[in-house]
Amino acid sequence: MNDTMKILSEKPLNAETPATHLQSWITSNALFFKRNQGQIMPVVIEDWRISIQGLVKRPLTLRYSDILSLPKVEMPVTLECSGNGRSLLTEKASGNPWTIGGVGNAVWGGVRLADVLAMAEVEDKAMHAAFEGLDQPVGSAGVKFIRSIPLVKALDSTILAFEMNGEPLPLEHGYPLRALALGWTGANCVKWLNKITILDKPFAGFFMDKVYRVFQKGEDSTSGQVVTIIPLKSIITSPETGTTFSKGDHMVRGAAYGGEEDITDVEVSLDDGGTWHAATFVGPHERYAWRRWEYLWHVSKPGHYVIMARAWDSRGRVQPMSANWNFLGYGNNGVLEHAVSILVR
Amino acid sequence: MNDTMKILSEKPLNAETPATHLQSWITSNALFFKRNQGQIMPVVIEDWRISIQGLVKRPLTLRYSDILSLPKVEMPVTLECSGNGRSLLTEKASGNPWTIGGVGNAVWGGVRLADVLAMAEVEDKAMHAAFEGLDQPVGSAGVKFIRSIPLVKALDSTILAFEMNGEPLPLEHGYPLRALALGWTGANCVKWLNKITILDKPFAGFFMDKVYRVFQKGEDSTSGQVVTIIPLKSIITSPETGTTFSKGDHMVRGAAYGGEEDITDVEVSLDDGGTWHAATFVGPHERYAWRRWEYLWHVSKPGHYVIMARAWDSRGRVQPMSANWNFLGYGNNGVLEHAVSILVR
Repeated sequence: MNDTMKILSEKPLNAETPATHLQSWITSNALFFKRNQGQIMPVVIEDWRISIQGLVKRPLTLRYSDILSLPKVEMPVTLECSGNGRSLLTEKASGNPWTIGGVGNAVWGGVRLADVLAMAEVEDKAMHAAFEGLDQPVGSAGVKFIRSIPLVKALDSTILAFEMNGEPLPLEHGYPLRALALGWTGANCVKWLNKITILDKPFAGFFMDKVYRVFQKGEDSTSGQVVTIIPLKSIITSPETGTTFSKGDHMVRGAAYGGEEDITDVEVSLDDGGTWHAATFVGPHERYAWRRWEYLWHVSKPGHYVIMARAWDSRGRVQPMSANWNFLGYGNNGVLEHAVSILVR
Repeated sequence: MNDTMKILSEKPLNAETPATHLQSWITSNALFFKRNQGQIMPVVIEDWRISIQGLVKRPLTLRYSDILSLPKVEMPVTLECSGNGRSLLTEKASGNPWTIGGVGNAVWGGVRLADVLAMAEVEDKAMHAAFEGLDQPVGSAGVKFIRSIPLVKALDSTILAFEMNGEPLPLEHGYPLRALALGWTGANCVKWLNKITILDKPFAGFFMDKVYRVFQKGEDSTSGQVVTIIPLKSIITSPETGTTFSKGDHMVRGAAYGGEEDITDVEVSLDDGGTWHAATFVGPHERYAWRRWEYLWHVSKPGHYVIMARAWDSRGRVQPMSANWNFLGYGNNGVLEHAVSILVR
């Protein structure tokens, strides 16, 4: 199914969803963006185990059937790559050249990480949970992809997902189990999960200290903030930038999402940000899932237009016109410029 | 993907979803039940048109792009075959031997039929909307599958769907367009839709008058009620009936749905209907979509058990212990008996 995706790199596999496949509230598994640091390893489910260790009173080793026997949660959650939009920054930044398609929305089925940690009984000094998966390192770094999140997030709103849109988690999306820190970027949602280590401080390692931090060139990377919450953002999925069409009525469509916050409004500008018009929401409204929106554009004058969308959240914040540049190009939530042309007839 | 479905007939294609694939709020497109009366015809989208005719002031012919340019709706909707559960009736009834898998839940994207009919301007005497698709008759009846619904339903809560779980409607599910009368059985949701005729009375024809009516053997079929709303029902999806397992804690899981009504409660009985215990709901709660539930069963005594589930709706109705038998076996929403065995250890 990769032939309909935009491949950014083959080894490791990184691919984004083209705008034509970002038209729906649900993003299909086959077309959901893929972001990997390592080599995907096949899994024999009977042999698979996950261990919960570190600062816990009862270290655990669980089988797949043990996970399935816990209370289930199912929820639609929008997941975005930390570097989505990197190639749209005004100044180049290092990393995969994501445009808008490093994001998708799926209904995930799984268990609460809190339920698993309750069985393991975390110790009083526990502060962070580190996730490690089965994928094997490739490339120069040569280290495993291990990431930790604060224990408060792990206990409050993190699930271990084994289903995606009603199917067992596909291998490319982390089969049999992945972490899903709700509203946080993909880097915090380790795939092929087989080890959770409870720590008294953040995990120290390449993928915590050297990358997935917001810092400026020349700065020490560890002085930058770790990438966590998905920033407030909207995307236009139709028409695509560069489209030419004729006068008349055209639907402008897209999605808006805001990490842990609710999206309250989306506005559209048809005059390069001069004036803004309220868009209409379409479809389900569920916490942690993007909201789809549309706006009917009556266009009567031929010419070139720059159309834009901006999202507002429940804390009254608005998406910025441009995001702060950083060395590794994370969190680009600046308003995007969609250039379209209306034919002279 | 049909190899993981239970095929009831090949020509026309009828296949149900096995219980092992009914474990999630979303049913994947590949495993969603398939129910056909005719032969599925390939569609060239550039050539496809839909006509809206009959009692309208402005007969219309619309292209696929015309449909896409209308305001979009997206919603999760549970769809059930009118004959689902037929083979579980205590007395045999004519028709495909559906067990529990003639039902599924998908997120559908489309347009409101009301928006299309507003363009066509229905006349004052209009009372019904008849749907016709591109599928060609097979078998003895030799007539096209045409069904009508009351105009009030067509205007209030019927969509024309072109997307299913974020993908273009698959050919087997009615590509490029199907009717979806929200909360009504599959027979009211004509696939490969290419003609809508507005009438002053229900459409007269084989699939309105001879079948999809609830009547007794020997009665005139037309004296029976036309099958419309999906009846209040619950299913147990895990454990499967006939399962043997050991003492301990076991999750009993399933779904409950009630057509146009909201599901308010699900109860589980572990003693052949003697006593009932409240189940816990899992996952999204959206109008027209089933609610998933689970119940933790602590079982300590070996032996044979009959486990059951029953659903309650927002009108205070409870699912009946057994449904009324009818000649064609429609609407079997009787409480199902799940026989399971607990090992002596």
